[in-house]
Amino acid sequence: MLHFECDYTQGFEPKVMEALVKTNLEATSGYGLDPYCQKATEVLKQQAGEQIAVHYLVGGTQTNMIVINSLLHSYQGVISCESGHIHTHETGAVEYTGHKVLALAAHHGKLDPSEVRQYVDTCIHDPQFEHIVQPKMVYISQPTELGTMYTTDELVALRQICDDYDLYLFMDGARLGYGLAADTSLTLKDYVKYCDVFYIGLTKCGGGFGEAVVFKDETVCPHFRSYMKQGGAMLAKGRLLGVQALTLFENNHYQHICAHALKMADRIKNALKQSNIPVLIDSPTNQIFPIVTTAQREIIESKYVVSRWSDLDADRHVIRIVTSWGTREAAVDALVETIHSLNEQ
Amino acid sequence: MLHFECDYTQGFEPKVMEALVKTNLEATSGYGLDPYCQKATEVLKQQAGEQIAVHYLVGGTQTNMIVINSLLHSYQGVISCESGHIHTHETGAVEYTGHKVLALAAHHGKLDPSEVRQYVDTCIHDPQFEHIVQPKMVYISQPTELGTMYTTDELVALRQICDDYDLYLFMDGARLGYGLAADTSLTLKDYVKYCDVFYIGLTKCGGGFGEAVVFKDETVCPHFRSYMKQGGAMLAKGRLLGVQALTLFENNHYQHICAHALKMADRIKNALKQSNIPVLIDSPTNQIFPIVTTAQREIIESKYVVSRWSDLDADRHVIRIVTSWGTREAAVDALVETIHSLNEQ
Amino acid sequence: MLHFECDYTQGFEPKVMEALVKTNLEATSGYGLDPYCQKATEVLKQQAGEQIAVHYLVGGTQTNMIVINSLLHSYQGVISCESGHIHTHETGAVEYTGHKVLALAAHHGKLDPSEVRQYVDTCIHDPQFEHIVQPKMVYISQPTELGTMYTTDELVALRQICDDYDLYLFMDGARLGYGLAADTSLTLKDYVKYCDVFYIGLTKCGGGFGEAVVFKDETVCPHFRSYMKQGGAMLAKGRLLGVQALTLFENNHYQHICAHALKMADRIKNALKQSNIPVLIDSPTNQIFPIVTTAQREIIESKYVVSRWSDLDADRHVIRIVTSWGTREAAVDALVETIHSLNEQ
Amino acid sequence: MLHFECDYTQGFEPKVMEALVKTNLEATSGYGLDPYCQKATEVLKQQAGEQIAVHYLVGGTQTNMIVINSLLHSYQGVISCESGHIHTHETGAVEYTGHKVLALAAHHGKLDPSEVRQYVDTCIHDPQFEHIVQPKMVYISQPTELGTMYTTDELVALRQICDDYDLYLFMDGARLGYGLAADTSLTLKDYVKYCDVFYIGLTKCGGGFGEAVVFKDETVCPHFRSYMKQGGAMLAKGRLLGVQALTLFENNHYQHICAHALKMADRIKNALKQSNIPVLIDSPTNQIFPIVTTAQREIIESKYVVSRWSDLDADRHVIRIVTSWGTREAAVDALVETIHSLNEQ
Repeated sequence: MLHFECDYTQGFEPKVMEALVKTNLEATSGYGLDPYCQKATEVLKQQAGEQIAVHYLVGGTQTNMIVINSLLHSYQGVISCESGHIHTHETGAVEYTGHKVLALAAHHGKLDPSEVRQYVDTCIHDPQFEHIVQPKMVYISQPTELGTMYTTDELVALRQICDDYDLYLFMDGARLGYGLAADTSLTLKDYVKYCDVFYIGLTKCGGGFGEAVVFKDETVCPHFRSYMKQGGAMLAKGRLLGVQALTLFENNHYQHICAHALKMADRIKNALKQSNIPVLIDSPTNQIFPIVTTAQREIIESKYVVSRWSDLDADRHVIRIVTSWGTREAAVDALVETIHSLNEQ
Repeated sequence: MLHFECDYTQGFEPKVMEALVKTNLEATSGYGLDPYCQKATEVLKQQAGEQIAVHYLVGGTQTNMIVINSLLHSYQGVISCESGHIHTHETGAVEYTGHKVLALAAHHGKLDPSEVRQYVDTCIHDPQFEHIVQPKMVYISQPTELGTMYTTDELVALRQICDDYDLYLFMDGARLGYGLAADTSLTLKDYVKYCDVFYIGLTKCGGGFGEAVVFKDETVCPHFRSYMKQGGAMLAKGRLLGVQALTLFENNHYQHICAHALKMADRIKNALKQSNIPVLIDSPTNQIFPIVTTAQREIIESKYVVSRWSDLDADRHVIRIVTSWGTREAAVDALVETIHSLNEQ
Repeated sequence: MLHFECDYTQGFEPKVMEALVKTNLEATSGYGLDPYCQKATEVLKQQAGEQIAVHYLVGGTQTNMIVINSLLHSYQGVISCESGHIHTHETGAVEYTGHKVLALAAHHGKLDPSEVRQYVDTCIHDPQFEHIVQPKMVYISQPTELGTMYTTDELVALRQICDDYDLYLFMDGARLGYGLAADTSLTLKDYVKYCDVFYIGLTKCGGGFGEAVVFKDETVCPHFRSYMKQGGAMLAKGRLLGVQALTLFENNHYQHICAHALKMADRIKNALKQSNIPVLIDSPTNQIFPIVTTAQREIIESKYVVSRWSDLDADRHVIRIVTSWGTREAAVDALVETIHSLNEQ
Repeated sequence: MLHFECDYTQGFEPKVMEALVKTNLEATSGYGLDPYCQKATEVLKQQAGEQIAVHYLVGGTQTNMIVINSLLHSYQGVISCESGHIHTHETGAVEYTGHKVLALAAHHGKLDPSEVRQYVDTCIHDPQFEHIVQPKMVYISQPTELGTMYTTDELVALRQICDDYDLYLFMDGARLGYGLAADTSLTLKDYVKYCDVFYIGLTKCGGGFGEAVVFKDETVCPHFRSYMKQGGAMLAKGRLLGVQALTLFENNHYQHICAHALKMADRIKNALKQSNIPVLIDSPTNQIFPIVTTAQREIIESKYVVSRWSDLDADRHVIRIVTSWGTREAAVDALVETIHSLNEQ
């Protein structure tokens, strides 16, 4: 079986693994206070701005819950679209830390800035505002859970809302590497400009685990390390995160390997188009959502591991196909051939 | 500088690293549902009993907070001695999940079973028991934060209390590998017998990260995986934990490498004795707490990284020296020589 | 100005006040362990079933958050319709205790049982169920926030779902007195049969404060008093709750005084009908939601305090008019006259 | 049986009850936005300073947990002495909101300022401070749980520590009325000067329920009402708190009625002295802790309800005798006579 169900089926990207092996028996301080974390941060500062503050955590859900809790008071909530990961697939981690996720409609996996503005405005001006969770943060994913991307205009609009109402803009970048490769008009500097805090996912973009949290500057959350420790998110051997991050950030290595995934995805998208298989949504990144018949799904699932996403009706099913830095040409060759064969049926 | 400040300064024990390299590009399911986690659990079941349930988490604080929260209702608390890690060095992670740590006196880093019994009995029979946090769990570490070990008799006594009052016995085994190597009269099967849940630390005993949680059986916490996910503790590439655990558990590899650490520690302890340098506490494991003068500390700190533990008075300081699977003979040779030289002053 | 904005503008219903005065200087035990709480519970047991367990809390939000937290594990959530009080007007109190409110569509302020069934079924059978908050409770209000009532059929259907999936059915009865007066085919015994736990609001139905929580039987939540104390909800002079509850429960006094409110509401509803002023929703209880023009609203607001509910468009506004046990005939006479005058415009 | 077990056995002080009766059927806004709360606050501002911000809650545990949560970040803790109410008798309410109570030694129910300073200093300068709960608030009770009082010097010292380390000083004044009557050298203005926030208990000092929280000024916690609502502590008919507070605050009525309790307590203390019955602690307020033999306790308990506090040994028991605004001369006459009779045995 060839794996296309997600972008975290393999271990460390080879160059990352090589760096881990090379540094393995060195002795360093723990808890992220080692030279590798420091160097990775220096590299990132050169790319994104000297004033940023960077912290390394292990996983995405962990990062979401700790960042959100570190910035909100208990009566404040975080706006997310209904398909947002924090609202759907984190077993209520944010609520577990005491905060309500304020879910607004999802439009191709994205918030509509004008709906966000209206919602915030209503909450603040409600005569019973003290009875209502007050929004204090906007959570977005880039790319989204559906592989779509916020445009510069949308980010500008969300930033403006956050400025107008004194909210934080927090961007979940679990797959940001794929996003940076897909839309090169948006750079790390832009994300620093638009967001108060975001993270660059290592787990799905070349690392074995890890997420690099970037705060606009140190004043946003001066005691973030205390929140990390309290949340069980300060890795003892933090240098393992540093070594991975350093390898991936240097020369934008993570973006290059993510670009490979996009090429592989493009081939699959083209094959779908040629075979007249519709997709749920046009995604510029490494996630593809074909709508297939039951018969087609059976053929695909006989050879490939894919995700079942949803059912549109009894004979129309959305599946998810994902490529990654580790997706091999040969596997895509096979999948493309299979997709073409579907057309002949 | 030679490192003796803790047992997590290096990466993965070589054999573990080798296994990670070997399996690196295989594709597996995520979230701990991979063949390596499964095999590691099978090995552990052979050693500890077929009925156990095993889960793999990333770090110790994370494991403590999630295990405790998964078993207690919000009005229930966990008993720990005052030097317990959950009471002192986890930034209030347990309280963060809503539970009070009920701190009793520490005797060489351990709870006194008779004091535990008296405390629990008092809480339960207090006419105002509804105004008091009800103890529902006893938390111990084996070895303790001071390197000491609970004896079989003490474990039997604590188990009896837990049976009498319907409490959980939870054992933090962040350094259990060293404990198993130090007191071979207590085996994994014994710990399964005495505890409802405990964990075998990988981070400090050969892994780069990871803690293997062992429940007495599946009924203790059937939905533990939901708690893991909610707490941000379900590693996406869970197989990285499985590969490490499998390598360490097979043929008790972790105990063998921990035995090396004990040998190294013994040499240091002997050197201290020969140099008439007292220790805070007689520890049979890999942590040593010498009491040194300011002058002695300066000499040591000029060549070695050690931990400053506490000050007994202006000129008597407790330092902590720790060995690990990765401690080299040559480094110990040097340290022993330095210790001998202290005597001559 | 005459008050119609809510049903808690006045103090204690006169008979309740009389009882408080009469018992005021007696000395009793605190924390609900007094003879008045005991007697009130005995009266309620006679009416609702001997096996019930009853507790007295102070307010509605407090009761909701404590009942919910007392029955759910941290990874479990509570289903509510989108207009449910816990989802909209409690400043995230339920999330503050760590639980997600799982919001489903509201149909005239009510959950649709078939939608509940489908949602629960989907959550449980999701292959990624460990990543999803698991529903464990269904929260409803009777009457709802829109004054509507669940029918016996709907309650039977919800009970069946709860039985099928092992969920709790929790009914917020902040206005239950009005509900019992409005639909006499549903008695306390029925609510005990359908619900695992519900409460009879005192605050809005004759008391100055207080909510009487009724558990189906003692096994549902044996340690509820510990949760109360922990949540700051165990009133020191608990007998003040007991005296109120006793007065209101004896001879169903609260239902009689609520019936007065319904009569007053009916007069207002008739006047609206006669004046061709539409209502948002046909409510059989003491809340009325007329849709008025801006001009009409101005006239009403010049003489009466009412609530602004929502705006349908620039010139169509929903207001809320509420009657209570304390609403005077003369005030209703005036309001009816005003409503009639609106028609003439 | 005559009641001396606590100061909350009776209902409302007669003048307070009279005011409740008089205002009972008036209609006012809810949630503390009524004229009575407003007037009570105005009276308090005249006494304590125009810049204070005042909020009315229902009970002590509730107030403690909400004030503490409203001012601390999740990684911050609150210092209390070991006998502090939040540490011992609130079922872990503070931990339930996510914060650790940092317990220091109790000296006659009080914190020693020099020990507080040393503790805070150690926490802040610990090289592993990120692994330690950071103290951010000092919690004291005035009078304490043992009836003792902090002196002006002690309050000055605590204030200085809080200024030096940027901590909040929070004073639990559940019995402050008795404290103000006992030590008239400390006035409300002083408490505003020394504390960032404190409360004046109504429940035990003339009210049926209620605690008036006083913030030094509005900037200390601008969104306190949101925290109140979220914590289930915003009383719907808030004017019931306002009416009580107004009656008690006007002309310092609560202090006058508390002075009566002190006179009654003095008579009992004198009788104990005359009978050579020792007390656990010299308390200047309305709580008395005699040390009695088993035989003496039996005699007392045959006629009076008192609290059992602790056992010094098999035949020496500490009981607690409490007077209140409602304690009658005749009851004290009887108790004094009984105490004298003990001496003759």
